[in-house]
Amino acid sequence: MKALVYGGPGKKTLEERPKPQLKDATDALVRITRTTICGTDLHILKGDVPTVAPGTVLGHEGVGIIESVGAGVTTFKPGDRVLISCITSCGKCEFCRKGMYSHCTTGGWQLGHMIDGTQAEYVRVPYADTSLYPIPAGADEEALVMLSDILPTGFECGVLNGKVQPGSTVAIVGAGPVGLAALLTAQFYSPARIIVVDLDDNRLEVAQRFGATDVVNSADGRAAEVVMTLTEGRGVDTAIEAVGIPATFAVCESIVAAGGTIANVGVHGTKVDLHLETLWAHNISITTRLVDTSTTSMLLKTVQAQKLDPSLLITHRFTLDQALDAYETFASAAKSKALKVIISA
Amino acid sequence: MKALVYGGPGKKTLEERPKPQLKDATDALVRITRTTICGTDLHILKGDVPTVAPGTVLGHEGVGIIESVGAGVTTFKPGDRVLISCITSCGKCEFCRKGMYSHCTTGGWQLGHMIDGTQAEYVRVPYADTSLYPIPAGADEEALVMLSDILPTGFECGVLNGKVQPGSTVAIVGAGPVGLAALLTAQFYSPARIIVVDLDDNRLEVAQRFGATDVVNSADGRAAEVVMTLTEGRGVDTAIEAVGIPATFAVCESIVAAGGTIANVGVHGTKVDLHLETLWAHNISITTRLVDTSTTSMLLKTVQAQKLDPSLLITHRFTLDQALDAYETFASAAKSKALKVIISA
Repeated sequence: MKALVYGGPGKKTLEERPKPQLKDATDALVRITRTTICGTDLHILKGDVPTVAPGTVLGHEGVGIIESVGAGVTTFKPGDRVLISCITSCGKCEFCRKGMYSHCTTGGWQLGHMIDGTQAEYVRVPYADTSLYPIPAGADEEALVMLSDILPTGFECGVLNGKVQPGSTVAIVGAGPVGLAALLTAQFYSPARIIVVDLDDNRLEVAQRFGATDVVNSADGRAAEVVMTLTEGRGVDTAIEAVGIPATFAVCESIVAAGGTIANVGVHGTKVDLHLETLWAHNISITTRLVDTSTTSMLLKTVQAQKLDPSLLITHRFTLDQALDAYETFASAAKSKALKVIISA
Repeated sequence: MKALVYGGPGKKTLEERPKPQLKDATDALVRITRTTICGTDLHILKGDVPTVAPGTVLGHEGVGIIESVGAGVTTFKPGDRVLISCITSCGKCEFCRKGMYSHCTTGGWQLGHMIDGTQAEYVRVPYADTSLYPIPAGADEEALVMLSDILPTGFECGVLNGKVQPGSTVAIVGAGPVGLAALLTAQFYSPARIIVVDLDDNRLEVAQRFGATDVVNSADGRAAEVVMTLTEGRGVDTAIEAVGIPATFAVCESIVAAGGTIANVGVHGTKVDLHLETLWAHNISITTRLVDTSTTSMLLKTVQAQKLDPSLLITHRFTLDQALDAYETFASAAKSKALKVIISA
């Protein structure tokens, strides 16, 4: 089969690989129909994620059709159309039993990380019963690829952790795909205002189309000041950090209102300054989370009920043969205006 | 009247001051019967709290008897015995109406800070109806002084923010009066383990008497390592930071379990390092809070029901004439073994 393989920092190749086999009784073999590229894949290629061994097939998002299942799989059968969660979970350990699937003691983020991933014609999915979701009949499968990772990430790590409430004021710092996923799903809870902060005018224009009430270009370094003015000095009830660098976290610390929450979504590579000398008395919460994908079923229902349109996030389409072009387009988003790219296998 | 007056950094005097007068219709004049000294008073004397003007009477804790009330006060009358909250709250602003009294737009921490405090024979208490509590008949008034600040602080900022649960594992870093208040009130929720960390063996011995299941002396800089061993590498569900310096906050970051909470109680003078490069994926919360004293009534009931004995925290007693000795004893706690000192007026 064709597969996009990580070759060590800076290296990726599209190559022929043996078709994966079932290994454990709880495995499913899935024929990928559509996959995508995540910002995390770019991090891996930069060498930021040393736990990924060279030779690993990349990708942790996708939809497909069950090819075969192990003897222990009871929920799915060959021919079923499935959504693959970026989080693999046994469903049985202490963490799984409290819904914290991201920290499953034998699972978590496995695909395209510890084991071969979804940017290929086939993928072996461990713990299939608890790591796959059936795709409802008639659903737009391409759109559902957005539910493998970025929509639950924006929703769980940003909106739910950030306790977005009716009438509240939200700021989303970073309008990349995950920040925009938070923007789309924040609207489930009818906040009064959603202020989106980014450096890129194209992404701010997209944010406005997606429901931002205010947008702030942070290029001049005055974003926090502008948000404080917009909120009459009060700050925001929820500040969602969707970039992952010290500067954007600092913006969140400066704009969170007394009693508010900073919900971190960004993947950080270095420590940040936490200004407890002022924040100790500010009655705030700061939350972090690796997505659990515990809300995937909920999100599927919102898509079916037309409360959420994940296809808005898709800007480009490629075949698996064009996977290297897909990477090129996704990595140069400022120029290509790419949000999410779909790769059809 | 006699009053303990702040004279600028490093300076305090016990002096004669005019008896305070009612100013607003919502004021009460309270004759102090017992007050105490807080770690915050020592911070003020070091010059760490520049918002306190020289000439201010110190103190934000105490019990007393109502001397007179303004025309707008309906809950209290002269002769009523009252507990004074360290937080003054109007009860009417947006923050008060959601129970966040610490951020009352015309109140908050006022006594011994923005206005004259309780280390005197009399004190004027603004917003008396919503800033005083009636003392139940037959109560141990001396013990209730602990409910002005440290017990609600340990309980709200540490135990409630830290989401202490039955069966959970708690670490309290810092066994000063507020850390010990967290230790006493954490036991309302039946955690499986409470590990107390401090530099002072006397305080650790007190912590054991107060219900700590494990104590760790952090003098060798290996406290985090020891806590991780005690918890079989898992860490603690709740880490309560009750010191207020970068080193103790760092211990909390190192010992919080995946899915756990760091509840900050300490008053910090400088920023700390937040290690988001590991914690971003650790599904934790960090909370901060200036005590709201929204649980004072609840705590009064636990005292009445003998679920909580605040008198345990009292180690020394002085008269107002001996206030300077009281400060000396409280400030040299490592030598005097003082926890809280009672000053009778």
